[in-house]
Amino acid sequence: MKRAELIEQIKIKKSYLCVGLDSDISKIPMHLHKEKDPVFEFNKQIIDATLPYAVSYKVNTAFYESNGLAGWESMQKTLAYLPKEVLSIADAKRGDIGNTAAHYAKTFFETLPFDAITLAPYMGKDTIEPFLKYENKWSILLALTSNPGAENFEMLATGGHKVYEEVLIQSSAWGSIENMMYVVGATRPEYIQGIRKLIPNHFLLVPGIGAQGGDLKELSKAGLTADISLLVNASRSIIFADGSENFAHAAALEAKKVQMEMEALMKDIL
Amino acid sequence: MKRAELIEQIKIKKSYLCVGLDSDISKIPMHLHKEKDPVFEFNKQIIDATLPYAVSYKVNTAFYESNGLAGWESMQKTLAYLPKEVLSIADAKRGDIGNTAAHYAKTFFETLPFDAITLAPYMGKDTIEPFLKYENKWSILLALTSNPGAENFEMLATGGHKVYEEVLIQSSAWGSIENMMYVVGATRPEYIQGIRKLIPNHFLLVPGIGAQGGDLKELSKAGLTADISLLVNASRSIIFADGSENFAHAAALEAKKVQMEMEALMKDIL
Repeated sequence: MKRAELIEQIKIKKSYLCVGLDSDISKIPMHLHKEKDPVFEFNKQIIDATLPYAVSYKVNTAFYESNGLAGWESMQKTLAYLPKEVLSIADAKRGDIGNTAAHYAKTFFETLPFDAITLAPYMGKDTIEPFLKYENKWSILLALTSNPGAENFEMLATGGHKVYEEVLIQSSAWGSIENMMYVVGATRPEYIQGIRKLIPNHFLLVPGIGAQGGDLKELSKAGLTADISLLVNASRSIIFADGSENFAHAAALEAKKVQMEMEALMKDIL
Repeated sequence: MKRAELIEQIKIKKSYLCVGLDSDISKIPMHLHKEKDPVFEFNKQIIDATLPYAVSYKVNTAFYESNGLAGWESMQKTLAYLPKEVLSIADAKRGDIGNTAAHYAKTFFETLPFDAITLAPYMGKDTIEPFLKYENKWSILLALTSNPGAENFEMLATGGHKVYEEVLIQSSAWGSIENMMYVVGATRPEYIQGIRKLIPNHFLLVPGIGAQGGDLKELSKAGLTADISLLVNASRSIIFADGSENFAHAAALEAKKVQMEMEALMKDIL
């Protein structure tokens, strides 16, 4: 998917919502467990219900891998079910040396043809480059994450910059705004302004609203650009809004609520 | 597997060799492609041939995931085939927030019952903790890697220490020498002495000899302790030593060569 296509979808749906399919099999409604593939059935209904309000879906690979072969199959089917006009993200946070990275790129851009993958930057440039060779595919690098552990290494001061700022400065030269995005946690809106000075035009993928408590208004004020360039992810607060047979309708209502907030926050840009 | 058991195996086999099963389906001998599961058949014969010389096997998940469902199945079968006395490592380099990390821990310690997993430290403490809750399981954190990209962020100076040194200092307090190891690249033996000052007793997993060119003698002199505390990995140089029907025998010869070098390097300790 091209940047222009993503921006167009955002403008059509008046939404920069990414729905996180953290579809923990132990948390999906009881009545779905009689299905052959409960996780896929759950995802299918969540996608159908939230599609008017979301431009992207993020599949958190951990929740699928932990189910082994069956989980891998649910992931395959979910990806195949996603319509072409949404940005499909493998939230896989991979990162390894070039030879191995090429195999991860094959996994998530070919075997499972996602549009985008999240990557861990720790091991540096040659671990990212194999992903950047694919046209119309996106590498989404971890920069400043939403969890407490971000303080351990990401926030360390190194010369004039913190480690996450070095990640932004160095890595933004490896690709372009057409094939790279960055993960910036919603729980740290006070940092987004500074991040925008370093990477004024890259898309940011911001997880952490909803269950993790990030503030949509604050982060959007700091992160939105003339081209929007923002995707905000909500997972548990949408997909597990209701644990009954009514779950999909409840998810739609939650997604719509976020979409309407986003529409208001974008009104001067649209 | 307990630390004492691993050290015992090293002493029995007079070897601290880990064989890396980077079993790229496009590189395995032609005659195996007629098998139902060529990758598993290859691994089986490699394991049988190298078992006298190796105390650990490292499954590089990328090479399995890139084959999709079939690859996941080859990984499962390979793990099941490994005998109990070797340390089985999932070289997966995962790293995500606590809720997700718990699912990765389930994946690689329960669904696939490996003894150990490699982890990326970028996102900090809460991304590692879920793995440390498992008894007799190992978290192997990336510290200083063997690839050129290590210069980008791992080697950045931050206050008195480089980033990888901060990883060692901080994270070594999260667990113990009974459940944590560190990845240190063989291409950087000059750093191992300094690393041993920071973590004198932890096992190091050292990839990068063979195809990547690291020097076994140099790194062993710097890394060996009274308890050995060293695993050195070779992948391609052993498993792809010969591309013909003779591959397993050639792999055994390569593994034996490394084992004999190791035996000589350990002779004052054993």
